[in-house]
Amino acid sequence: MIVLDEEQAAARAWFETLRDRICAEFETIEREAGSDACFGYTPWNRDDDPEAKGGGGVQGLMKGKVFEKVGVNVSTVGGEFSGEFAKTIHGAAENPSFFATGISLVAHMANPHVPAVHMNTRFLVTQKRWFGGGADLNPPLPYEEDTRDFHAAFKKACDENEAGDYPRFKKWADDYFWIPHRKVHRGVGGIFYDHLEGDFQANFALTRSVGEAFLSVFPTLVRRRMGMTFTDADTVQQLEWRGRYAEFNLVHDRGTLFGLKTGGNIDAILMSLPPVATWA
Amino acid sequence: MIVLDEEQAAARAWFETLRDRICAEFETIEREAGSDACFGYTPWNRDDDPEAKGGGGVQGLMKGKVFEKVGVNVSTVGGEFSGEFAKTIHGAAENPSFFATGISLVAHMANPHVPAVHMNTRFLVTQKRWFGGGADLNPPLPYEEDTRDFHAAFKKACDENEAGDYPRFKKWADDYFWIPHRKVHRGVGGIFYDHLEGDFQANFALTRSVGEAFLSVFPTLVRRRMGMTFTDADTVQQLEWRGRYAEFNLVHDRGTLFGLKTGGNIDAILMSLPPVATWA
Repeated sequence: MIVLDEEQAAARAWFETLRDRICAEFETIEREAGSDACFGYTPWNRDDDPEAKGGGGVQGLMKGKVFEKVGVNVSTVGGEFSGEFAKTIHGAAENPSFFATGISLVAHMANPHVPAVHMNTRFLVTQKRWFGGGADLNPPLPYEEDTRDFHAAFKKACDENEAGDYPRFKKWADDYFWIPHRKVHRGVGGIFYDHLEGDFQANFALTRSVGEAFLSVFPTLVRRRMGMTFTDADTVQQLEWRGRYAEFNLVHDRGTLFGLKTGGNIDAILMSLPPVATWA
Repeated sequence: MIVLDEEQAAARAWFETLRDRICAEFETIEREAGSDACFGYTPWNRDDDPEAKGGGGVQGLMKGKVFEKVGVNVSTVGGEFSGEFAKTIHGAAENPSFFATGISLVAHMANPHVPAVHMNTRFLVTQKRWFGGGADLNPPLPYEEDTRDFHAAFKKACDENEAGDYPRFKKWADDYFWIPHRKVHRGVGGIFYDHLEGDFQANFALTRSVGEAFLSVFPTLVRRRMGMTFTDADTVQQLEWRGRYAEFNLVHDRGTLFGLKTGGNIDAILMSLPPVATWA
């Protein structure tokens, strides 16, 4: 059982509302494609773990006709980081207590012309309090028009908030979503930001705008591409590309590491992995 | 260009000979199944990397009817470990120079009744000189008979060598091939040993016996199972199981980490990944 202060409760409420709106929109897209696929929701909690202060989350998962596999997780957890890990977390070196609430979304799409996507925003409290997050587009078959629209949506979200800094956040995504052992980017980028502390209201407003930007642009891209025909060769390319995606998430992704190190729910943490991937 | 001393040259020659014999036997199995699949060999070298002292290897890869994807790599490399990484390697904390020669094999099989397998033996030289290696069986659909025969072959290899210690090496494999975030073993085990230093001839003899044990038992298991019929449900189980295999290799495997940290050939390092894997 964890007790939330006013900021923590406000952040959690936003992440849960955003989840509801995104899932409803994705189910609407499935209807438009003639499918009756729905999200299934699986709650999990850490209250039976004596080393955790508790909390938990809800893993949302849909396997549809357009969305081959899409996971939307919200979680709100508290506890203490283990010793060595605490030293790597902002504000936790002296005191390992933490609170975290956030939303995390990964969509792997059936049609290789439709981009896959990742979005995650979160509010962390250690001896510091900050927001972090971002979104990045992962098209197996990239279209310049889609990349441009995706970047434009997040530029607008940054530009209309005093806490936003688009050039810095875009570069951060370019630097972060990089697979060093392959020397390639994971996708075509987006924005990434972290340790946004200080003015809670300003940082929270940016984080809400990032969520709204996602909700506006991604369904547009899906509807633009979901009816396109594709070949076996397109699918081969998609599955190879998903192998790179899995490599990034398992070898480099800090969110995955955070989940594994803090005793999160393994199915929720690894829902980011593609439904099918190949290594030639 | 690296210059080998007598022990290094002897170890390398053994690994290359073992590779030739294993690849010939696997190709014979393909013939028995009516396939004309052969290994293709891709050499790579580090001589153009100014930070490496050089060396390289040969990546052998076959995609056949029985062996859906099998990689057999030999490599012989020298150089200096990077600072932080050196501290994690036996005998390299004070002086980061190293030499390594070894064979590494991973076979992913088309028929889910046929076990996948991993085998790797190596000779390392830092300020210490040692052999390491092992083999473990990874059946998507385990058979007690196969597990028993596999373990018996490596027990015999250990028992007939003074450097062998089967109970210890078997437990080492059980401890090593463990996926902590899933709380399951990667497969049904085998043997694992490392830092076997001191008597070069005795340790080399054990390492040769381990190679002979592999060459004797694994083809037997393949021939026992390769003709069995299998269902779609068997394949579903095989592909999910391969997801766990990929997770282990990308998150935990020290050999994979060693390769990525020492600038090895990325295709050779990641040849261990399954041809197709799923995450439900």
